[in-house]
Amino acid sequence: MSKTPLSSLGEFKLIDHLTRNVKLYNNRTIKGIGDDTAAIEGDNDITLLTKDLLIEGVHFNIMYTPLKHLGYKSIVVNLSDIYAMNGHPTHVIAGIAVSSRYTVEALEEIYEGMMLACEKYKIDLVGGDTTSSASGLFISVTALGKVSKDRITYRSGARPNDLICVTGNLGGAYAGLLILEREKEVFKANPQSQPDLSQFAYVLERQLKPEARKDIVDLLMEKNIIPTSMIDISDGLASEILHICKSSNRGTVIYEEKLPIDVQTATIAHEFKIDPTTFALNGGEEYELLFTIDQKDYDKIKGVEEITVIGHITENPSQTDLISTSGNVITLRAQGWDSFRKDN
Amino acid sequence: MSKTPLSSLGEFKLIDHLTRNVKLYNNRTIKGIGDDTAAIEGDNDITLLTKDLLIEGVHFNIMYTPLKHLGYKSIVVNLSDIYAMNGHPTHVIAGIAVSSRYTVEALEEIYEGMMLACEKYKIDLVGGDTTSSASGLFISVTALGKVSKDRITYRSGARPNDLICVTGNLGGAYAGLLILEREKEVFKANPQSQPDLSQFAYVLERQLKPEARKDIVDLLMEKNIIPTSMIDISDGLASEILHICKSSNRGTVIYEEKLPIDVQTATIAHEFKIDPTTFALNGGEEYELLFTIDQKDYDKIKGVEEITVIGHITENPSQTDLISTSGNVITLRAQGWDSFRKDN
Repeated sequence: MSKTPLSSLGEFKLIDHLTRNVKLYNNRTIKGIGDDTAAIEGDNDITLLTKDLLIEGVHFNIMYTPLKHLGYKSIVVNLSDIYAMNGHPTHVIAGIAVSSRYTVEALEEIYEGMMLACEKYKIDLVGGDTTSSASGLFISVTALGKVSKDRITYRSGARPNDLICVTGNLGGAYAGLLILEREKEVFKANPQSQPDLSQFAYVLERQLKPEARKDIVDLLMEKNIIPTSMIDISDGLASEILHICKSSNRGTVIYEEKLPIDVQTATIAHEFKIDPTTFALNGGEEYELLFTIDQKDYDKIKGVEEITVIGHITENPSQTDLISTSGNVITLRAQGWDSFRKDN
Repeated sequence: MSKTPLSSLGEFKLIDHLTRNVKLYNNRTIKGIGDDTAAIEGDNDITLLTKDLLIEGVHFNIMYTPLKHLGYKSIVVNLSDIYAMNGHPTHVIAGIAVSSRYTVEALEEIYEGMMLACEKYKIDLVGGDTTSSASGLFISVTALGKVSKDRITYRSGARPNDLICVTGNLGGAYAGLLILEREKEVFKANPQSQPDLSQFAYVLERQLKPEARKDIVDLLMEKNIIPTSMIDISDGLASEILHICKSSNRGTVIYEEKLPIDVQTATIAHEFKIDPTTFALNGGEEYELLFTIDQKDYDKIKGVEEITVIGHITENPSQTDLISTSGNVITLRAQGWDSFRKDN
């Protein structure tokens, strides 16, 4: 039998490859693999189902990740997928596997964080599985949600001239990660060091305790806007824009000068001698929403502080342009994080 | 902060402890933590949701577990929980984390097994997450199902004089595990050995590629029986009977001579100098159904080969008696498998 290393395909191609033969048997399955969540037709609403894994040493470093935040984040990243379908989460179910290195108190902290997220988003934690692992901490959360048939928003509906909108600001979670990694090295060199991280509070929270954009889904409803496509930004803006273009079979033009970047993020980017735009395009784990709207809806979002129009959709699927601040045209590439890449 | 080792509580107490403060926010949540699945009220049916983890080095040994079987089993164990609510599964979502030691071909085998189970049970695999792990293979499957409001069966409905029924036969999966563990030691001592395991085919299949009892749920419907309580046997018959008694606040009497044990299982038990009854009571991973029915329904199941009446429910919750073949009264104890136990 041939032996193809996992790193040779990359995460998205690997999933495409593995699931290429998946057959569906229920005619109520509207959407299987390939969007933020699965979509299953009910009598009145559509049921949404999604799952994200958080794995020690891959998605988080236990050295600088407070367990309560980790529990919180494990719920939020799943809710984010439901919001990205323009739906509302209702229930979560959590699986946790821990090695004997962890204590009951450690598990309590994870659960506390999970329950805090459930309280904030008014979600029911309705079960799961808690078991031991040979090594490391693994968290698997599944979220269930619903959306009305006339509001569900896939990745595939973007049309030429639709405006591309992004919520909040970009690159902060990645800036926070760089700070944490730097402090880890400082601590390893000098365990007595007492770092003052208070000046980085915003980006650290973006990395360690992100929120999902329920407010945006509510706002879209209130303003009577149904996006033509939507996705959450977990692997970096560039990667997600390309997902929407590919699913919608369209192209895009986005403008560097429009990218919303917080001043703390920009300061850290400069400190690390990296272009803040790179943070914004390729930093992952944002859990902001990226969506497209018809131009006629522009007036409804104009002036909403949390939504920025960064570009538009074009006819030609092979056009994926970033117009730089200096006016150059650069082809967008997905350089988002890939857990299978060898250099992680 | 105090540091309580995980092994001090045991799996069930640990889960009770961790989830004691879980609050529910949706009034449609009929059942949260504490049964085979969660139950969520819909407009017509009840939605069922469940998750089981399978973890390398804890739930399976990769040395003797064919990956295709493992994929198959990861789906089946979740379907079994849905059937244990008297429901039918409709969709599954799968998360897999693997270390770089695994190849694309290895993941293909796991997916093939998953798809085979989906085909057999006519379930849709609608998504998931595939990512890398620092070490080992982790599979997390969530199953979604439904059941009509008048047929849902919890653990808590058993009433005095109800008959206790079990499907199939017991102890086979554990017998299979003992054979595999023995062969592993033989192989380690002599890697050239070519074991003939064909005589153990039945129990090996019970361990490596179990089936879920869809046929029984269909049969109960066909015969117009609604069990008063039901659970699937994943941690051993004794443990599951005690779950039903505790949830229903009732006691039980079961009869050793009634326990259904396959001849291959009994032969292996004797070979290992263990009482076959011990296999039947404490062997886990059976994925048979244990349920209670009203005595008036006895005639409907009489003569059904796959269902055995092994005892009845009693009024007094503190009575949990096993009547031995020789007529002695022995108190049932849960000695099922606990992943947190130190001697695993």
